[in-house]
Formats: sequence, C-alpha cells, structure tokens
Amino acid sequence: MRLSRFFLPILKENPKEAEIVSHRLMLRAGMVKQQSQGIYTWLPLGKRVLDKVNAIIREEQNRSGAVELLMPTLQSAELWQESGRYDAYGKEMLRIKDRQERPMLYGPTNEEMITDVFRSFVKSYKDLPLNLYHIQLKFRDEIRPRFGTMRSREFLMKDAYSFDLNREGAVHAYNRMFAAYLRTFSRMGLRAIPMRADTGPIGGDLSHEFIILADTGESEVFCHKDFLNFDIPGVDTNFEDVAGLRAIFDKWTSRYAATSEMHDAPAFEAIPEGERLSARGIEVGHIFYFGTKYSEAMGAKVQGPDGKEHTVHMGSYGIGPTRLVPAIIEASHDENGIIWPKAVAPFEAIVINMKSGDEACDAACEKIYGALLNAGVDVLYDDKDERAGAKFATADLIGAPVQVIAGPRGVASGEVEIKDRKTGERETLTIEAAINRLTSGN
Amino acid sequence: MRLSRFFLPILKENPKEAEIVSHRLMLRAGMVKQQSQGIYTWLPLGKRVLDKVNAIIREEQNRSGAVELLMPTLQSAELWQESGRYDAYGKEMLRIKDRQERPMLYGPTNEEMITDVFRSFVKSYKDLPLNLYHIQLKFRDEIRPRFGTMRSREFLMKDAYSFDLNREGAVHAYNRMFAAYLRTFSRMGLRAIPMRADTGPIGGDLSHEFIILADTGESEVFCHKDFLNFDIPGVDTNFEDVAGLRAIFDKWTSRYAATSEMHDAPAFEAIPEGERLSARGIEVGHIFYFGTKYSEAMGAKVQGPDGKEHTVHMGSYGIGPTRLVPAIIEASHDENGIIWPKAVAPFEAIVINMKSGDEACDAACEKIYGALLNAGVDVLYDDKDERAGAKFATADLIGAPVQVIAGPRGVASGEVEIKDRKTGERETLTIEAAINRLTSGN
Repeated sequence: MRLSRFFLPILKENPKEAEIVSHRLMLRAGMVKQQSQGIYTWLPLGKRVLDKVNAIIREEQNRSGAVELLMPTLQSAELWQESGRYDAYGKEMLRIKDRQERPMLYGPTNEEMITDVFRSFVKSYKDLPLNLYHIQLKFRDEIRPRFGTMRSREFLMKDAYSFDLNREGAVHAYNRMFAAYLRTFSRMGLRAIPMRADTGPIGGDLSHEFIILADTGESEVFCHKDFLNFDIPGVDTNFEDVAGLRAIFDKWTSRYAATSEMHDAPAFEAIPEGERLSARGIEVGHIFYFGTKYSEAMGAKVQGPDGKEHTVHMGSYGIGPTRLVPAIIEASHDENGIIWPKAVAPFEAIVINMKSGDEACDAACEKIYGALLNAGVDVLYDDKDERAGAKFATADLIGAPVQVIAGPRGVASGEVEIKDRKTGERETLTIEAAINRLTSGN
Repeated sequence: MRLSRFFLPILKENPKEAEIVSHRLMLRAGMVKQQSQGIYTWLPLGKRVLDKVNAIIREEQNRSGAVELLMPTLQSAELWQESGRYDAYGKEMLRIKDRQERPMLYGPTNEEMITDVFRSFVKSYKDLPLNLYHIQLKFRDEIRPRFGTMRSREFLMKDAYSFDLNREGAVHAYNRMFAAYLRTFSRMGLRAIPMRADTGPIGGDLSHEFIILADTGESEVFCHKDFLNFDIPGVDTNFEDVAGLRAIFDKWTSRYAATSEMHDAPAFEAIPEGERLSARGIEVGHIFYFGTKYSEAMGAKVQGPDGKEHTVHMGSYGIGPTRLVPAIIEASHDENGIIWPKAVAPFEAIVINMKSGDEACDAACEKIYGALLNAGVDVLYDDKDERAGAKFATADLIGAPVQVIAGPRGVASGEVEIKDRKTGERETLTIEAAINRLTSGN
C-alpha cells in the first residue's frame, strides 16, 4: 500500500479524552474515530489490525473443531422471554421497537438465539458434539463506556456455543476452547492467564477468564509466577484427545490464579513470596460451562443412544476482538508509539523514502516496495512529500515491526537502513540484501 | 471439511414460506434460518458463500483504489438532522433511544457518517481523490420483507464513498467504480447490465443500477442484446487511466438499457426487433454521483490548489452481498438444487463415500480428501453413515461444482467417478487421475 493512496489521519497532539495509552495511541495513529459515546469507526489502519486479530481467532476456532455461522445483531424479545433474561438483563440491553411495534433488542450475547438454532435442527445425539461460533457485533449500553474500544458500547465479539449430550462431553468441549484460547492469545504475542471466574448472569458452575497482565488493567489479579513460563499447546494439538486436553487444562489450572473477585488471600499468601505475582490485568476472553440452563428453559433436547430424550449441556466462549486490539497495544508500546507483534501488525514493514521526488531514492524505494509486495509481505510505502523527521515519527507511531529507510546518501552507494521497531537497532545493508532479509524472513 | 463435523441442516421438504427458488434452495440447503421477519442467521454453508462473495467484492474495491474501514451500525440522530434526512427518511429507518434517551438509529446507509469522518480529518486537495468503503450490516424496516435474504430487513451492504475536488474528478471516481462493478459481478459468474437509474432519496444527477437478468427479478428491464457480449474489463485495467475508464463507461452505456421506471418505449422500439431484450432483472448494485448534496449541508470542504475552500464532490456505491447470494442462485440452479460458480462455491468439490465404514471406500476417500486439502482445494468430505441416494441428493442440492464418487465396486479396481454438477457428465478415473484432475485444475 502506498501511503499517498491510503487514509491515515495521524493526530499530532495527544487527544485529551484518552485516559490510557492504548486509547491515546489508537487515536493518534488514526486507527479509530469516536462517532457517539462508546461507538467507534475503525479507520483503515485499525481495520487492518482487527482483520488480523479476527483471522487468528477464526483459525484457532476452526482448528479446535468449531464451525462458523453468522447470527444477526437484532433479536426478538420473545427469545429472551423464554430464557427469562429479558426482564433480568437490565438497562445494558438496548431495547428497540420496530415499525410494527414488535419488541426487539440489539443482541448483547447470543445464548438464546443459538439455542433456538440448535433446537430447530438438531434432534439426535449423532449430531453431537457441536460447537458453533460467530464473530458479530454486540451492543451493551454501558452507563460509562471508556478507554476507547477497550470498553465500548458497540463492539465485536467472537462467541462460540458448545452442545453436548452430557456433562462429560461438555467438559471436553470446555477443555477444547481452553486450549484454543491459549493458542489464540499466544499467536498475538500475549501471555493470557486463565483465572477461575464468577459466572455472573450467564450462569453455570465452571468459568475462566483469560487475563493479560498490563499496568492499566481494570482488575487486580493474583497468580503464581509459573504461569509466565508454561508451554502453549502446539500447532499439532489433537483436539479429539480427551486425556490430552484434560492434561493441558490441569497444567494451566495447577497454580493459584484469581481476579480480586475470586481472590483467596490466605491461599495466595501460602505461595512463597518470590513466586507470587500481584498485578493488574485486562480480560480478553471468558469461557463458561453452564449445563442445561438455556437448553432446559428453551427445550433443546436430543434423542440419546438409549432412545430417550436428553436436555443438552452447553457452554459459551467469548473473545472480544475490538478489546484485544487495545490490549495488545497496552502490552506492546514505547514512548514513540505502538510496537506491533508481526502476526497482528497492520503492515509487516514500512519503506520510508527520505526524499520523495529524488530520482534515485524513488527508484530504490519502488524496487524494494515491488519486491516485498511480490513476496507477499504486507508493506506500506511512505511515498509522501514530507520531511524525513515527520516520516520517522509516523513510522514509529504506527508501529510496523521493520522499517526500511532509504536516503539519498545511502542510495548513492546502493544501500538502505533497516530498523527494528522494537529494539531500535539499525543496520546498513545493500538494497539486495535488505530485500533478501525481508522476504526470506517471511 | 468432514460433513460429520460440519453443521448442514438439510430440509427434506420444500418450505412453504418460500416464494422464489433461491429462497427455497437456501432454506433446503441449510444456508439460512429466519430468526424474525426479514432477519436471518447465516448457517455455516451460507456463511461460506457470503465470505467468498465479500472477498471478491473486497479485492475489486481494493484494486480500484478504494480503502476499507468499518463504520458502526448505530448512528446518532444528530448527523442525520444535519443532512436533513432524519425527518425525510420515513419508517424504514429504525429509530432507537439509548439509556440516556439520546436519539439513535440503525444505519440504513452511511453518507452522513462518512462525510463526518471526512470533514474531521481531510483539509487539503492533496489528500484527494479518496474513496472509502466498508462492508457492514444495515437495517431498513421494510413493511414487507420477502424472498429470504433477497429483501431482508437486516442485511449486509458494501458501501463506498468517493471524495473529489470537482465534478470532473468525481466522474472519474464514478467510472472507476463502474469498471470495478463489472469485474466484481463477472467474477461471480453473473452478467450484470448497468442501467441508467433514478437517484431517489440519495440525490444527484448520475446513477446506474447493475441488473442481472433472472425470471424471478422484481423489476421489468429493457435492453439491447449487445450487452450479453460486451467484454468485461480485464485484471490489468488501469484505474488511474482517466480516458481508458471513460472508454469502458462509454462502451457499456452505448446501448439502450433501462428499468421500467426509466423506460423510454419509443427509444427501445427503435432497436431492431431481433436485438431487443425484454426481461426481468434483479438489482445487485447501485452507484450514484450526487455532487455536493451532503458535503454542502455538512461542511465537508478542502483547501484547493488555488488556496480557496472547495466543497467536495461525492458519490456513493452500493453492493448487497446478502442479496447477491440468492441472485447467484436465481441465475444458476436446476431442479435438483444449486449450481455454484466455482469462485463463490461453499466447497469447490465434494467427495462422496458411497459406503462409509467399508474399509476400501474409507481409505480411498481419505486419500482423495487429504490430497485435495493439501493442494488447497476447498473440499467437503461426505463421510456420514447414510445411504448413497441421500448423499447424491445432498451433493446436488448444495451444488459443489465437482463431485467425486467412491463406491465399493469402483474402488476395488482403483477407480472413482467424477461428476460435473452443471452438465451432469460423469467420468470414471483412477484415484490418482482423479486427484490430478482436481488439483491441477486449481
């Protein structure tokens, strides 16, 4: 992408409304624009990151055996009356009447609707296990939306729903998602720690929040330091292997980890002091096993191998992509801007032409840009007519992992500089060597 | 994908509510489920087609120079009061109050919001031309939603918005989208004919609808037969070439084409009888040049090269992906089901195991399935324990372009059948040859 053809509205000054660094950087880097309180437009740079986050989520959901569909945002109130949550949900639910005066709502979550999909079609245990997910907008009318897309009213959620014949099957479904979540967050450069959680209004008796550590996190968390070194399940994880997945779950729940809500101070203090971690965290995922709460109320039953009807056991599993983007920034930035992990970077590399209009610089940059594009590298070419200092600041701000810097002096001797955004290390290479480095690394 | 792990709720009987063939087939093939009047869940098979349709739209938008962002679904009423459309829009606009009693609405289109994005950031002609698009849900509270996702209330729309310094630039932006649309529909196996259209509530003085011919189309259309043979702009189309794009526009508007609204009977009858085409059509895209209608009302101005302020000229360009899916089916089906063009097929091929559980059949199918997956073919493997007749009916219904049929007799001599879904032609090949055929064709 040529920057001259892209839409990257960088802000020069720090926006006053931003209380936390990710919000400030997302506004400054032209990633988002607030449209109404807690409602955002994702500008092109932000959209690219969001797409990469969604792609990783989708790959790991599919790998674990979940199947994607897409439920609508608007739901009929009737469904929620069936489960009993219509009255219970409170003011966070955005209630709407259509032109026929029918009561509708903007879905804050989809347990009811997916249970309706399930009961409409699935009649036999032979069609189980089943895990259906979608990545769809939700609306929760928070009284105090804040921190940009970290806590917005209209937000994107990946929500998966598992259906099993019995508790045993449902626990395996839970372990599948548990492992898939560890892989998902790890691929985004995050270490997420699963913490036993309260099930709240979703219900059920087994639930974990996945929390990443960040100074700006909204919750206080307490855990054993071992979590920082546990192995992430590999790409070869067999999601059919009941014992194998249970072992992953057991390992990752073998040490103390709790949010302040569930904190057990004596248990935490029993850990040797040097192994305790007390920090702030950001919730990036939440999984629930809630048994037959919705299936019972809504009549989601299948015929079992015994010929009898069984109410299915369910779980639900959420990840917030529009919240993950700022969470990644909270975990990875410096005073100059964002430092994207390669897997979610809006661009893997940026080519900076220090003197656009200079024939030799233009030619060198075009050559590098073309070669990277051909090799499938997601590259941004800063071809704008701006002074070099402004270009460097923009490149650092938007955080592409690698910068290729071409100035008249270097180009005259066939050389460019490569700068690693994270370490700041610079290296001078021939143009050919720079191309090789960036394309072979891919 | 193994069918035993997929979620494909096939209906055996024709649903009564479906008036047109695409709606009937989408319900029968388990592509969608109605959740409320005019509000649908896209089940996994439908979601796969929708994703492929969106991917083609996105590629062609990007190729033409448009840049993707994502605006929210909910908008504040204020924006629409600025343009004057809040009161004018009528009951199709779903009006909402949030918990603070602020008037909001579920966006039926985004001219106002994109103009707000533009005016917030763009101040100079140097940042033009600009074309921003998103693929986002819309809601229009139609009094009579019908024909499934062809005319639903909650639907997906790709809407692009162009910004130019003057009319001349805007007309070039229009021509870019004109050419991009021809390419987009053609890649989906559709011949779309641009027809001069009324601009309606969007406003402006230049507008074309892209119409595909189908017996079930809602509008009567009249055009010259030459349209059936005009060349589609190639993959090498230069979207910067003003004259080249104008030539494409001129060519594709050189013959008579009109919907009944804009029909000029004497002009049509002046065409020699054998060259006239009078048919029914489905609108799949609509483009508008509307000048300064929104930019004037909302103050979207830039500084020109002359140092003065100029109100920008705008256009908007819509495609309905959730309507395109049934439109493709209307254009391509037979009495047994859907016949997908390869580019939008949910699966490019289906491997049918005529005797699941039979050791030789299972081995042959696994071998073929694995080889196709490895070669990147999007393949469904019907590994279910069902009788062959039911499997054949399902395969025809869901419409994968190629079927690979493995039965005990053939497999015993190392052979399988390949069936072309469209022509019905069958061919017996060795397993190796079948794999080669399907992977080399890719």
